[in-house]
Amino acid sequence: MNEQDLKPYVIGLDLGGTNSVFGIVDSRGDIKATTAIKTQAYDEVEDYVKASVDALSIIIDQVGGIEKIKGMGIGAPNGNFYSGTIEFAPNISWGHNGIVPLADMFSKALGIPVGLTNDANAAAIGEMTYGVARGMKNFIVITLGTGVGSGIVVDGKVVYGCDGFAGELGHVTMFRENGRSCGCGRFGCLEAYCSATGVARTARELLASSDEPSLLRELEPEKITSLEVSIAAGKGDALAKHIFDFTGELLGEACANFAAFSSPEAFIFFGGLTKAGNLIMDPIKAGYDKHVMQIFKGKAKFLVSGLDGSSAAVLGASAVGWDL
Amino acid sequence: MNEQDLKPYVIGLDLGGTNSVFGIVDSRGDIKATTAIKTQAYDEVEDYVKASVDALSIIIDQVGGIEKIKGMGIGAPNGNFYSGTIEFAPNISWGHNGIVPLADMFSKALGIPVGLTNDANAAAIGEMTYGVARGMKNFIVITLGTGVGSGIVVDGKVVYGCDGFAGELGHVTMFRENGRSCGCGRFGCLEAYCSATGVARTARELLASSDEPSLLRELEPEKITSLEVSIAAGKGDALAKHIFDFTGELLGEACANFAAFSSPEAFIFFGGLTKAGNLIMDPIKAGYDKHVMQIFKGKAKFLVSGLDGSSAAVLGASAVGWDL
Repeated sequence: MNEQDLKPYVIGLDLGGTNSVFGIVDSRGDIKATTAIKTQAYDEVEDYVKASVDALSIIIDQVGGIEKIKGMGIGAPNGNFYSGTIEFAPNISWGHNGIVPLADMFSKALGIPVGLTNDANAAAIGEMTYGVARGMKNFIVITLGTGVGSGIVVDGKVVYGCDGFAGELGHVTMFRENGRSCGCGRFGCLEAYCSATGVARTARELLASSDEPSLLRELEPEKITSLEVSIAAGKGDALAKHIFDFTGELLGEACANFAAFSSPEAFIFFGGLTKAGNLIMDPIKAGYDKHVMQIFKGKAKFLVSGLDGSSAAVLGASAVGWDL
Repeated sequence: MNEQDLKPYVIGLDLGGTNSVFGIVDSRGDIKATTAIKTQAYDEVEDYVKASVDALSIIIDQVGGIEKIKGMGIGAPNGNFYSGTIEFAPNISWGHNGIVPLADMFSKALGIPVGLTNDANAAAIGEMTYGVARGMKNFIVITLGTGVGSGIVVDGKVVYGCDGFAGELGHVTMFRENGRSCGCGRFGCLEAYCSATGVARTARELLASSDEPSLLRELEPEKITSLEVSIAAGKGDALAKHIFDFTGELLGEACANFAAFSSPEAFIFFGGLTKAGNLIMDPIKAGYDKHVMQIFKGKAKFLVSGLDGSSAAVLGASAVGWDL
């Protein structure tokens, strides 16, 4: 009987700005039980961990007790794999103001090993463990959500760099002049254009700068989201399609630069914007083909995440738990 | 007695477009003997390898025979570490037209293991083995010569990617619009601006577009090289200094993007342009500080290669021989 038979599960925690979602997952990526708490209902991290453990204890019992669980993985904003800490996470009430040793706290409370990394790295480990990157050694996951994140895998391992913060590909500069302001305080970053919020900004800019008819004109500009752009494009709206062409081509061009760095066998896209399907994936591929160096042409695959959408982040986080 | 005592040397081959320079090197990076042949004096690779082995046999005897030699490392343009081949190397008479299994050919001829990689990766391994990167696990070597090359080390290993061609950072796009043509067939690449030839191009452009007095005006524009720009800048020539400021700041800005990728603890510059010293290094650091993300600020060191200039490429190549 090997260890996986004795301890067949890991816990995954997708720690988001609103909800903290927990899942107990087996080695095939089947989620056996889930629970959740509100991330921001606590001012002190001690209270957050206590509430988490209370919620977890119920689903841990459901799968046969803590002795069935190999470890726990946490995917969190500003998560540092090396230290297991969350560092100055701007959107978390108990985490914005310092360095929180969250992995250590959960490990002491539960009595199991706990690993922590940022959301995008967790997604990359999830793709390797249960998703479309099984068997791949070199690939890049790009998360297209409120921001643009990335998890880079080289030679079968996530790239963490000297400080645990490598893989911030949402913040490579795409527009060196007159670039949009970015949440990071700089200008022209990929994220300012290719995140869900970036897509909505592009929509507002295009609507303001032309008279082109569009279904999007029926909406208040400030209320436009990437979902509405996607719906309009799906109905054949030319301006909405143009927004996705612009976004995808810029992503493809960025990927051409990333290829020069680590020559991955695949780029894997993850998160809300991927729901637009070929509306976004086709221009990504076209932008890449147009800009990539000759020696890399035709080598990389462009894939959409293989993790189940609603629980992808929990699966990604849980995957960190297998390697501890 | 360990293996290093029995086989205390490796052979390094710096395979350039003009000369092929061989060195026999000990584990401290001392070159015990050298020889060289003309790279392009042969139409067939078989003749090139035969001439190399003839030249090598003399210096191999000088150090006590082939049984003293652990292996051989080759640094070559378009070298592929995975396959030990040189692939479509445009500037080599016997190598421009296909895939040459050079490592294998040398291994058979000499009876020792032979590894091959491109020049910049060899430089990175050389810095780890004998140079300023000893003890570092995450760093990037940027070679500033006729072109701009790079060797990326993550977690103590060179990044080769899915095909052996990762680390082409000279060909990230810096100017997305109106970029200079690059030797790779694309436009706006870092190499088109920050190589020695790029510096000379910048000089010609600036001289043509202004009336600013400069020592460089005493030269025929087509004969200006980066060395002359360096000499003029050293004498306080404002236009020449401006050229280095532009070049360095662009390199620093590129490094800020590279930090977002792999968060290295150091950027190490290698090759002819580094002889300009602070004229190039100061604007590199300034450009980096200005553009890098807040979380990476102040973390990376900016270093000049620690390998002895005249034999740096041979040392780098030889270092590949230790790991076989």
